[in-house]
Amino acid sequence: MEQPEQQGERYERGLKALQHLSGETDPTVVTSLADIAPDLGRFIVEFGYGEVHTRPGLEPRDRQLVTLGALAALGNAAPQLRFHINGALNAGCTRAEVVEALTQIAVYAGFPAAINALQHAKAVFAERDAEA
Amino acid sequence: MEQPEQQGERYERGLKALQHLSGETDPTVVTSLADIAPDLGRFIVEFGYGEVHTRPGLEPRDRQLVTLGALAALGNAAPQLRFHINGALNAGCTRAEVVEALTQIAVYAGFPAAINALQHAKAVFAERDAEA
Amino acid sequence: MEQPEQQGERYERGLKALQHLSGETDPTVVTSLADIAPDLGRFIVEFGYGEVHTRPGLEPRDRQLVTLGALAALGNAAPQLRFHINGALNAGCTRAEVVEALTQIAVYAGFPAAINALQHAKAVFAERDAEA
Amino acid sequence: MEQPEQQGERYERGLKALQHLSGETDPTVVTSLADIAPDLGRFIVEFGYGEVHTRPGLEPRDRQLVTLGALAALGNAAPQLRFHINGALNAGCTRAEVVEALTQIAVYAGFPAAINALQHAKAVFAERDAEA
Amino acid sequence: MEQPEQQGERYERGLKALQHLSGETDPTVVTSLADIAPDLGRFIVEFGYGEVHTRPGLEPRDRQLVTLGALAALGNAAPQLRFHINGALNAGCTRAEVVEALTQIAVYAGFPAAINALQHAKAVFAERDAEA
Amino acid sequence: MEQPEQQGERYERGLKALQHLSGETDPTVVTSLADIAPDLGRFIVEFGYGEVHTRPGLEPRDRQLVTLGALAALGNAAPQLRFHINGALNAGCTRAEVVEALTQIAVYAGFPAAINALQHAKAVFAERDAEA
Repeated sequence: MEQPEQQGERYERGLKALQHLSGETDPTVVTSLADIAPDLGRFIVEFGYGEVHTRPGLEPRDRQLVTLGALAALGNAAPQLRFHINGALNAGCTRAEVVEALTQIAVYAGFPAAINALQHAKAVFAERDAEA
Repeated sequence: MEQPEQQGERYERGLKALQHLSGETDPTVVTSLADIAPDLGRFIVEFGYGEVHTRPGLEPRDRQLVTLGALAALGNAAPQLRFHINGALNAGCTRAEVVEALTQIAVYAGFPAAINALQHAKAVFAERDAEA
Repeated sequence: MEQPEQQGERYERGLKALQHLSGETDPTVVTSLADIAPDLGRFIVEFGYGEVHTRPGLEPRDRQLVTLGALAALGNAAPQLRFHINGALNAGCTRAEVVEALTQIAVYAGFPAAINALQHAKAVFAERDAEA
Repeated sequence: MEQPEQQGERYERGLKALQHLSGETDPTVVTSLADIAPDLGRFIVEFGYGEVHTRPGLEPRDRQLVTLGALAALGNAAPQLRFHINGALNAGCTRAEVVEALTQIAVYAGFPAAINALQHAKAVFAERDAEA
Repeated sequence: MEQPEQQGERYERGLKALQHLSGETDPTVVTSLADIAPDLGRFIVEFGYGEVHTRPGLEPRDRQLVTLGALAALGNAAPQLRFHINGALNAGCTRAEVVEALTQIAVYAGFPAAINALQHAKAVFAERDAEA
Repeated sequence: MEQPEQQGERYERGLKALQHLSGETDPTVVTSLADIAPDLGRFIVEFGYGEVHTRPGLEPRDRQLVTLGALAALGNAAPQLRFHINGALNAGCTRAEVVEALTQIAVYAGFPAAINALQHAKAVFAERDAEA
């Protein structure tokens, strides 16, 4: 079992990871929950990022590949899929690799899941081009 | 568009990739379908492996991470999840990385999906130990 | 087995329950199906409400908690989730309890399911505030 | 809206349809629920079969194709998939057509869903051969 | 195993089937992927239509019933469900049969899945009326 | 934001809640992960129970109703569904209420999900009778 640490440390570590992955200073996922379920926003930072994403056993880029696989296969979480397509690019995946990963979803979750995921990738790429 | 090729080439290329990933000379997924739906077995080899898995744009190890994410999140395809846990190890993932990848599923598809995926990992690791 | 009853009784009882849960005199779910699949609308009233929701063994508020759990976890039925967030409030849940219930979905179906469900809750609460 | 009818008529009509589809005099789905949730068993007969399956607008064989598509794609309801593979054969589908239908699931829900569905078909065909 | 054939033959055969099913000369599913994942578009034509949909063992209309069952039950692929509602009509289903098939989904995947699928059917029917 | 606390407090609080819900001194979910993914076991205790389940805004019994709804609707997490059927009874639900809650799943996720959930309830009730 890890050494006890202050809860604040988890939040700080998670926020930093989330900022890095998203490129956002004030991550939208947290602000969008602030007036409805702020504790869920906190759990995402502390647990999702502070405890899981920042574990040393898997590279950030690898974690994004796992996440793209999960979200594209589930096919019911469009905002999060877009977020993590962006995150995968920020974590070092090329656009071609993201396209490859999502194309592969056709084999495991069917063509509709892959097609819809790639339409989200198209939108994310266009947003990034517009911002560049 | 790729150059036309003989269908036999796709099958050969796919079979080789499937044999390499599974460590099986006669892949079980093909033999288990032989007397009920041999063409589905052929599609898996020709399309799943001959066309998708062998594309150059993503490393085999990366493809396995995407696949683990997809199958663990769906949570309804135990034989395939076990197959690809094994495949991930054969493609260069360490056991610790597989555990990390499946643990992360808790964030995206819930704890039950992660717990059940890790029980499959435990079984696959034990089988490999027994064979070694 | 229950005593036989006229089909019309089931419809009347179900409509009353649906009106009460939704606060609508002409429930939208029925009117929205009227010109495409009126019998599905009838089944919802007769079976979903007239036979299931009005059974005595579980309080209406409890039934809404089960339904919120189901719809938030499935994550693919936004209109129905919104309807039942509203229904939960009409059946006696506080807003804080709805938020608590949907937050808990993160544990069982992952953070994306919980986040998206809570965005729907935010929208429903805003609509109710606007109507008030 | 249809004419009111006695609830007993729905049960009788549904039971007859269920018996015909399953080839069972005492359908297992009803008996297996008798000591835990007999009313769910009754709903299956009255609503599922008495109201939906016996509607005139779609042939029994066509209904089974829709059902095979739904259950194979969901991939989480093995007993019901086996039941309806059997039902499809009893409703006039050939074994080859069942195999074709389930193979097609690979396109819409991925190869694992199709592979697992076809293993169930293999088991159902073997049971029927053993009984013959 | 089928005779080897040139890959181009698969594409031609698949495109023809897809054109026939969709009524589109340049199928949208292919053009919408052209600038993001053209190979996925090619796989849909070659594999989905050239290899699966054009197999002789099941009538096009029957294949559409299976597909409607799968997509309506999954409930997370709205564009594809609309496409195949249209395809079912082009393959010989009547509107009443499509409504019947989607209504039946309530039994196997719940009322929300059926309601949402029928709203898509309503939209597709309206588009066809507007085009007529 | 809550006051920072030592991580150990979360674990202790969570373990106590998990012990109470399960009736197990050494909860199986933790011990079953000990040799494969002990940190996932720790996350379940610290986060799932120490942070979510023990929040004051919803009664334990209510949380179990939400969880039963989620797990029965997902239909792909049998061990967890059995665990939480047991937990619901330990948290104050009667058997009749559990049956009612799972029966209601037929409306939102289809009859197969409800039937399979109730077979799990039957098994859990029998285990409890055997232990009594």
